[in-house]
Amino acid sequence: MNTASHILQGTSRRPEAEQTNFNDLDHWIDLAKTLEKGKFYILFFADVVGLYGNHRGSYQKFVEAGLQIPSNDPSVIASAIAYATNDIGIAITSSVLQEHPFNFARRISTLDHATKGRIARNIVTNSLQNAARNFGQDLTPHDERYVWADEYMDVVYKLWEGSWDEGALLQDKEKGIHADYSKVHKINHVGKRYEVEGPHLVAPSPQRTPLLFQAGSSPAGRDFAARNAELQFIITPSPEKAAGLIQDTRRRVFEAGRNAEDLKFMQGLSSVIGSTEAEARAKEVELEESMDLDAMVAHLGGAIGVDFGHHSLDTPLGDIEASDGTRSIIEWTRQSVEGREATVEDLGRLQGRNSRVVGTPEQIADKLQAWADAGVDGINVINATRPGSYVDFIEHVIPVLQERGLAKSEYGEGTSRKRIFGTDYLPERHVAASYRGAFSNQLEEG
Amino acid sequence: MNTASHILQGTSRRPEAEQTNFNDLDHWIDLAKTLEKGKFYILFFADVVGLYGNHRGSYQKFVEAGLQIPSNDPSVIASAIAYATNDIGIAITSSVLQEHPFNFARRISTLDHATKGRIARNIVTNSLQNAARNFGQDLTPHDERYVWADEYMDVVYKLWEGSWDEGALLQDKEKGIHADYSKVHKINHVGKRYEVEGPHLVAPSPQRTPLLFQAGSSPAGRDFAARNAELQFIITPSPEKAAGLIQDTRRRVFEAGRNAEDLKFMQGLSSVIGSTEAEARAKEVELEESMDLDAMVAHLGGAIGVDFGHHSLDTPLGDIEASDGTRSIIEWTRQSVEGREATVEDLGRLQGRNSRVVGTPEQIADKLQAWADAGVDGINVINATRPGSYVDFIEHVIPVLQERGLAKSEYGEGTSRKRIFGTDYLPERHVAASYRGAFSNQLEEG
Repeated sequence: MNTASHILQGTSRRPEAEQTNFNDLDHWIDLAKTLEKGKFYILFFADVVGLYGNHRGSYQKFVEAGLQIPSNDPSVIASAIAYATNDIGIAITSSVLQEHPFNFARRISTLDHATKGRIARNIVTNSLQNAARNFGQDLTPHDERYVWADEYMDVVYKLWEGSWDEGALLQDKEKGIHADYSKVHKINHVGKRYEVEGPHLVAPSPQRTPLLFQAGSSPAGRDFAARNAELQFIITPSPEKAAGLIQDTRRRVFEAGRNAEDLKFMQGLSSVIGSTEAEARAKEVELEESMDLDAMVAHLGGAIGVDFGHHSLDTPLGDIEASDGTRSIIEWTRQSVEGREATVEDLGRLQGRNSRVVGTPEQIADKLQAWADAGVDGINVINATRPGSYVDFIEHVIPVLQERGLAKSEYGEGTSRKRIFGTDYLPERHVAASYRGAFSNQLEEG
Repeated sequence: MNTASHILQGTSRRPEAEQTNFNDLDHWIDLAKTLEKGKFYILFFADVVGLYGNHRGSYQKFVEAGLQIPSNDPSVIASAIAYATNDIGIAITSSVLQEHPFNFARRISTLDHATKGRIARNIVTNSLQNAARNFGQDLTPHDERYVWADEYMDVVYKLWEGSWDEGALLQDKEKGIHADYSKVHKINHVGKRYEVEGPHLVAPSPQRTPLLFQAGSSPAGRDFAARNAELQFIITPSPEKAAGLIQDTRRRVFEAGRNAEDLKFMQGLSSVIGSTEAEARAKEVELEESMDLDAMVAHLGGAIGVDFGHHSLDTPLGDIEASDGTRSIIEWTRQSVEGREATVEDLGRLQGRNSRVVGTPEQIADKLQAWADAGVDGINVINATRPGSYVDFIEHVIPVLQERGLAKSEYGEGTSRKRIFGTDYLPERHVAASYRGAFSNQLEEG
């Protein structure tokens, strides 16, 4: 995330942490080059468009911890990252709240041209109250957000896949014809939230529709992913839980008329690596000491829309009245803490431990093998420090994964979709493909 | 403009024209490096967010001529251009129609960080019917557009200048304080079109508010420029006309509480350069032969919202019933054509000749001196071919201008505003400065 403190709060204070340089383009370009050494497919930017929440009634803690504020826009630095690299894809998160689909579609198509097909988009709705207010809105109820996102995707699919037919761009200097009018169409979208005339202002880019990521795990989110996404971020506490989620979502993918393998799953994992298990455990203790548990609690509270800051960190969780939004996380935390009563501080501590892998490179590879066996296709490497977490992972774990055939040793060629799925465009069975050839100029009256 | 055919239609068909490569990032980066050799202050991108109009009742001519369609987004390629260069500023056009001010402010601040203060913004309203329809709107009446733009600027000024006080960003690893909460404020803007809570998501960038360009020349447009702009694009047919426009606008600048010289004026000019005047004239004939006058007429029609395509190119202008929107351009064209009745084709031909300078480098320098004497501060070099028009100008005209002290020989240091006005930030007398220190957290309740 284009910010100082994304998930593991407090670690930006460590001496080797360079993530406070996020304003500087070189920070990102150096990171992208590092990731290319490790043959990472994608540099993925999470994003928000507002404060993550309130803690003790204000945003003070968020500002002081650099907790997703400042939060810089990732889309405008993507072209520089692409220019300085050759292979890695760049995934941008963009909320349906923040930009009109006509403008968004144009930006992404321009970027897909500029990067020669290395652009991916993480589709998100917005769950943050302050973000809604930054755009003059009240927070949209959860399931209604996906109805909104469905129409949003409908508009951008029409622009990306339907507005310009294949072969429309001629650039014929002799005949003086830049493009074939009979193949460039208005889309005349009329829906609940949007009316968009078109045509799309950008000629078809290498991937047309960018590679599509999604992260929601609610039933509505899974259905949305099943219809739209090609890569799904998951953060599950165990391979077993991941297997259940994957099975359920793949069923939905199949029901949406796609092949089950059209959607790949990436588990978010952080790692602590040692040359011995004891060294790794010692490094984990050191890592935990560098964390800001109050900020971890603030972050968790922001994610579920609750202000835990009104309770001191040593408040036993048994003393907190659980609501529908907090019951499951409080229960899970109490069960995970053994031999004593869990406190508010444990809410934060357990969030950090959740889905962390610790050990020697070989032990970590064993654990990743277990995730792979559960059906996980890839890992979203969560950082404690930038670039440190990635440098460590690439130096120590990637070679073992490559040896075991769990990570690739060479990049393929072409667009990001081509490298992952073997084709530049979305397959015919994806809903976006239904707009190919769907528009004509016959009724055009200007 | 991030397109094949911007102003001088048809010239993209010339053998040396590379502007059809606009999808390719290298096209722009090579151009920026060329402009840096000529010590240009700014690479300026014009932009539209819709079809420029209809011609013979449809957008066919626009598509076939590549006339501002495709039109790629300039903002997402700016960081790559900045990364590959050191000195040149990058000016992006953005319409109040296309993006919510909260998102826009964030993007620009991110870019200003990434470019180390080399970002400028050309503020525009939208006059295109299709663009309005791409955003689900009817075209906003002319003067109302500036009311809209006033509120838009109000929001972004609050975010850029008022949300983060000086010294708010601490990044103090020892104390674990990323930013000083008491200096980071919500703006709570409530206006006719926008409600924006804030705070701004990006810490103050090198220029805070980007260098501000504007182009409107109507009375409402001049007033808007007088309040907001630092650099004003003008396209006037003579130094005398320029002098009148500049005098009138500078009076408005003064009335807006600013110093008259706080606004600089840039005349749009294209050039045809020869080693002798005869050679230049011959090259001009060749240039005119390469132009597409039907597309020139379509472009003019789009600019004023009239479809001249319903008349054949040889229709005498005397046969066309003039409306309020066309009377002055028809009269001007008839007066400019000597010895015969002007036709529709002449509407296009004269647009190409308007503000073109032709001659030897010394003759062109003489003409530019006359513009400078009329009060023009700089030239916006309009291209017939990219990069050819700039290569020619830099190779032949710039050295003469440098010798005469009309162009600089070395870049200064620092942000774009610093290089042009001597300061990184807008001066205190600019309306944006009134928001510095205007917000506090005292009433903050989360």
